[in-house]
Amino acid sequence: MGAALIILAAGQGTRMNSDRPKVLHPLGGVPILWHAMAAGQALEPGQIVLVTGHGAEAVEAAARSYDAEVVCVRQEQQLGTGHAVAQAMPALAGFSGRALVLYGDTPFIRTETLQAMLASPADLVVLGFTAADPGRYGRLVVQGDRLERIVEWKDATEDERAIGLCNSGVMCADADLLAELVAGLTNDNAAGEYYLTDIAAAARARGLDARVVTCPEAETLGINTRAELAQAEAGFQARMRVEAMENGVTMQAPDTVFFSFDTVIGRDTVIGPNVVFGPRVTIESEAEIRSFCHLEGCHVSRGATVGPFARLRPGAELAEDVHVGNFVEIKNAILDEGVKVGHLTYLGDAHVGEHTNIGAGTVTCNYDGVFKHRTTIGAHAFIGSDTMLVAPVTVGAHAMTASGSVITGNVPEGALAVGRARQENKAGLAVRLFEKLKAEAARRKGKTR
Amino acid sequence: MGAALIILAAGQGTRMNSDRPKVLHPLGGVPILWHAMAAGQALEPGQIVLVTGHGAEAVEAAARSYDAEVVCVRQEQQLGTGHAVAQAMPALAGFSGRALVLYGDTPFIRTETLQAMLASPADLVVLGFTAADPGRYGRLVVQGDRLERIVEWKDATEDERAIGLCNSGVMCADADLLAELVAGLTNDNAAGEYYLTDIAAAARARGLDARVVTCPEAETLGINTRAELAQAEAGFQARMRVEAMENGVTMQAPDTVFFSFDTVIGRDTVIGPNVVFGPRVTIESEAEIRSFCHLEGCHVSRGATVGPFARLRPGAELAEDVHVGNFVEIKNAILDEGVKVGHLTYLGDAHVGEHTNIGAGTVTCNYDGVFKHRTTIGAHAFIGSDTMLVAPVTVGAHAMTASGSVITGNVPEGALAVGRARQENKAGLAVRLFEKLKAEAARRKGKTR
Amino acid sequence: MGAALIILAAGQGTRMNSDRPKVLHPLGGVPILWHAMAAGQALEPGQIVLVTGHGAEAVEAAARSYDAEVVCVRQEQQLGTGHAVAQAMPALAGFSGRALVLYGDTPFIRTETLQAMLASPADLVVLGFTAADPGRYGRLVVQGDRLERIVEWKDATEDERAIGLCNSGVMCADADLLAELVAGLTNDNAAGEYYLTDIAAAARARGLDARVVTCPEAETLGINTRAELAQAEAGFQARMRVEAMENGVTMQAPDTVFFSFDTVIGRDTVIGPNVVFGPRVTIESEAEIRSFCHLEGCHVSRGATVGPFARLRPGAELAEDVHVGNFVEIKNAILDEGVKVGHLTYLGDAHVGEHTNIGAGTVTCNYDGVFKHRTTIGAHAFIGSDTMLVAPVTVGAHAMTASGSVITGNVPEGALAVGRARQENKAGLAVRLFEKLKAEAARRKGKTR
Repeated sequence: MGAALIILAAGQGTRMNSDRPKVLHPLGGVPILWHAMAAGQALEPGQIVLVTGHGAEAVEAAARSYDAEVVCVRQEQQLGTGHAVAQAMPALAGFSGRALVLYGDTPFIRTETLQAMLASPADLVVLGFTAADPGRYGRLVVQGDRLERIVEWKDATEDERAIGLCNSGVMCADADLLAELVAGLTNDNAAGEYYLTDIAAAARARGLDARVVTCPEAETLGINTRAELAQAEAGFQARMRVEAMENGVTMQAPDTVFFSFDTVIGRDTVIGPNVVFGPRVTIESEAEIRSFCHLEGCHVSRGATVGPFARLRPGAELAEDVHVGNFVEIKNAILDEGVKVGHLTYLGDAHVGEHTNIGAGTVTCNYDGVFKHRTTIGAHAFIGSDTMLVAPVTVGAHAMTASGSVITGNVPEGALAVGRARQENKAGLAVRLFEKLKAEAARRKGKTR
Repeated sequence: MGAALIILAAGQGTRMNSDRPKVLHPLGGVPILWHAMAAGQALEPGQIVLVTGHGAEAVEAAARSYDAEVVCVRQEQQLGTGHAVAQAMPALAGFSGRALVLYGDTPFIRTETLQAMLASPADLVVLGFTAADPGRYGRLVVQGDRLERIVEWKDATEDERAIGLCNSGVMCADADLLAELVAGLTNDNAAGEYYLTDIAAAARARGLDARVVTCPEAETLGINTRAELAQAEAGFQARMRVEAMENGVTMQAPDTVFFSFDTVIGRDTVIGPNVVFGPRVTIESEAEIRSFCHLEGCHVSRGATVGPFARLRPGAELAEDVHVGNFVEIKNAILDEGVKVGHLTYLGDAHVGEHTNIGAGTVTCNYDGVFKHRTTIGAHAFIGSDTMLVAPVTVGAHAMTASGSVITGNVPEGALAVGRARQENKAGLAVRLFEKLKAEAARRKGKTR
Repeated sequence: MGAALIILAAGQGTRMNSDRPKVLHPLGGVPILWHAMAAGQALEPGQIVLVTGHGAEAVEAAARSYDAEVVCVRQEQQLGTGHAVAQAMPALAGFSGRALVLYGDTPFIRTETLQAMLASPADLVVLGFTAADPGRYGRLVVQGDRLERIVEWKDATEDERAIGLCNSGVMCADADLLAELVAGLTNDNAAGEYYLTDIAAAARARGLDARVVTCPEAETLGINTRAELAQAEAGFQARMRVEAMENGVTMQAPDTVFFSFDTVIGRDTVIGPNVVFGPRVTIESEAEIRSFCHLEGCHVSRGATVGPFARLRPGAELAEDVHVGNFVEIKNAILDEGVKVGHLTYLGDAHVGEHTNIGAGTVTCNYDGVFKHRTTIGAHAFIGSDTMLVAPVTVGAHAMTASGSVITGNVPEGALAVGRARQENKAGLAVRLFEKLKAEAARRKGKTR
């Protein structure tokens, strides 16, 4: 069984200037919290314990929507990181194995780094990093390979402040040992808080082996302000773009393409400038997403072309060689191979059969004010421009609708459905109407003089 | 009574390569000129005198549209900054108090800086700055606290060029004194121009006290080329974004959000990537503006969601919890609480009552070729997809329109309005039509061989 | 007669991680290859020989679509640059004059640089550059003015590696001489390849005069990875933006405007943030392209305004003072002076006469499932909102269509065409329908309990 994860997510994040709990602000389209959870999840952990506090209900709901199995415990008072970990320990009673302490607001930690910590034979493993500017980070005091203690910057001597190796806060020990160590913490300090960092010295005092595993500083980046969040997002996007290019994705202007946490894009797919991928998007190889598209919760198959100015919403499934053009919205709809939806259309709650052509201005009228209904269109059909498909409704294969028709009843296979008035030309009437309007305009103008 | 402002805006801006007067090029969505005017306006000035020259009419119109009280004087010939200020002085005859000389093409001067100048007891106050690269700026020659003179770079000695303190051109003195000083200027120099800078030495020659107030170089940035304008715009946007984040606005990609001069956005409002705010936009707290939106002259209330791909034009008023979706344009229209306009709609010159749902493809036909007319829709109504509302027209509360209807007359409260032809299915006709077309295609293809 | 160009474009570009030949990846909206071809084309060359290999058919097709006269030869085996040039020489049999060797993946070489090479009287001219970081580039070993030899980095001595002058690979010699020199190459080296670089030493051995012409390193930038392509694209866009600003184009956010290879924009035209220009776009002076527009193969005249959210596709021709508004698509359509197309419209395969107004939601139904047909609208006409123009169809000058009409037959000049059902209000029916739906919702809710 894998290690246990203890994720601390109780902080308020005052400097965010927000009513939303800090770890729920979005990064890569999902809560910041999910990133640390994902790094841990890849370890196939035996158990995950989330410690919540501020905005606990919302944080717990977000955590469970990522992983329904997560155990949530509440830290009712904010008495320090040591206290937070102590709240988690009862949930791990009976668990035997390593426990890793992570932070909900530290999204960039890599699974490989956590694996390196778990691989260490030491009793206590602390994740350190060499900071470009160590500033007020806590410092790791080591003797040879041994971690002697962690000193907070404000308690550090001149010599200790000269140390370059900083404390990330991420730690790992057997769950039993960790429980003992945090139980032994005191709040005998200026802040009156229980510091998790004190367990390093405590472990050494017990003759245990404490060691440091290091990682690049970027992995330890925490988020405290909106400016830091914006930087983190920029860093996240930069990594996603480089990765996409390495995987063979073609982008004219990578800096204008925004990815989510879980965006998947195939080789030789072409992405134009200004494309936004929300969560849960998969694009196969050799597709094309043109400029100014917004995609979310959808799947685009090989050879399909989308946009410019298209929106694919959750449940949009585009089969091979589908074309979705400009000012088109697709929601919860399956478009079979070769379907074309060129312009100004809304398809929602629908299934369209292969090689069917949808004319400009078509709308699936899927909502009656209370319920949503489905539209089904067969293969090789031709939906004329400005067809209203009043759902629930079915149009058969090889059928046509005349442009401007309101389709309220099913259309049999191969039939032509027409629902429109006959055109009548009224000779000279346009000229007379226009003259009347102009006369009225002249009259009004006269009045205002 | 506050100080008088003299704003110089007569220059052509040849290096802009434009027919438009330089100070009318846009910065943050409004003329460059407005920025200096706004910095001055915050002082509650007793009078504002604008000196115009090139493109005088357009510049004066732009200035008056910001502040109708501004007095405009024309500098018919471009004979130097001293001459420009001299043109302004008759307009201040009778004014008693300080006069501040500002520049229409220097948009970043801060009100606090001007206040510091006004607070100085000196007879003449000159705004200086320490340039990163002093280059060809004029230099301020000081002795102790005293400003002795201002030397133009081309007239400066080696020693003077070594001075780091540069001249911004912004000055302040009692209006009477300023009038005397500029009246005493000569154009006895290579360019044959009256230099405002010469008044510093003249003041000293009269035994008056001249002093320097300093500000960061960035405040003194003038705009002479389109590249400099682009840099100024980038700087302006960067400041607006930082300010928005500090105020608690959530932005995934701040670099892709463009603000105007007067954009106001509330706390915990979420702004997606690629949003453009034109002038006069106010967004309350906890609203959401999704990607690819363009807003101008509108108001969005708490809890409302807009976009992606929405355009709000002047006069759009969205009450709480309104939803405006994709490919929707709202112009001069009030949407009461909870109204939903999901897709592909144009609402112009309209009022929509609370909780009414507007179907996809709805259009307010507000223009008859000469006049614009209003559409009024009551509360809890349901406008079916592709409804044409031929204004002037009223739809009552709790009324419905059938999708595809053209509504030319009023719809009473609670009524269902239908204006569409009945659907007719013609069995097998689609297949026959399609076969005919394909036969024709084959025939044509045969012909071209 | 101008020089002959030999363009090497046989490489696979393995590091692009793509099935597409490297030189066909897009840069500035056109294949990378076109850029080198354009630099050469400006020399009015006597002949162009393209050496292809990987993806030869596609590369040749792309080259011919730029210049139908190009002669393509295939290098079946990749035996080195010398071998590649040797393949080209038979195609130049009978050609007398200078031959220039260029590279299909080196897009930034300037015509002026090539002219400087052609102007040199030396027998062999090699293009060199001083690299910021010479790294593993080949080095040019010179004595005084003479190029003695070119050494590959891996074969270079310490002293040679200390040379800062690097080899771009671009060379020039009389075609006859070049043929002789490449015929004399051997593949007596570790890689077993014929190196073009060896001809420098061979020329010297024959007592010929070899010289170096230099250019900035940026011109010699080759493209080997998608990251390099993205950098090249960014560099290309940066140059285009600076050039546009120098030419008097107004852009609020130049970094968000994307140009193509051949975009032409007039003075005092205003471009909003987030505009994408595909190939073959010409915008005259004093036009306005607002935010979020996508243009391709179109022409916009003086005073026209486009967008926001507009798409102009190939064949869109906008005359003076035309207005194309939001969510509008124009394809292969001529809009005469003063035409207004404000909202939610598709015009394809059409001609619209001057000062005609097109209502919101109008669609030219130009496709019958097999053929495309044309729509012709006269001057001063008024097309009501949601008019379907079922092509082929003609609407006369000064005619009107009633909103919601389907126009299947021609409309005479000055006539009003109506094709819609009369509105009928069914008193109280909306309320009864809605109550029924709510009762059903309550019933279902009860069931699921």
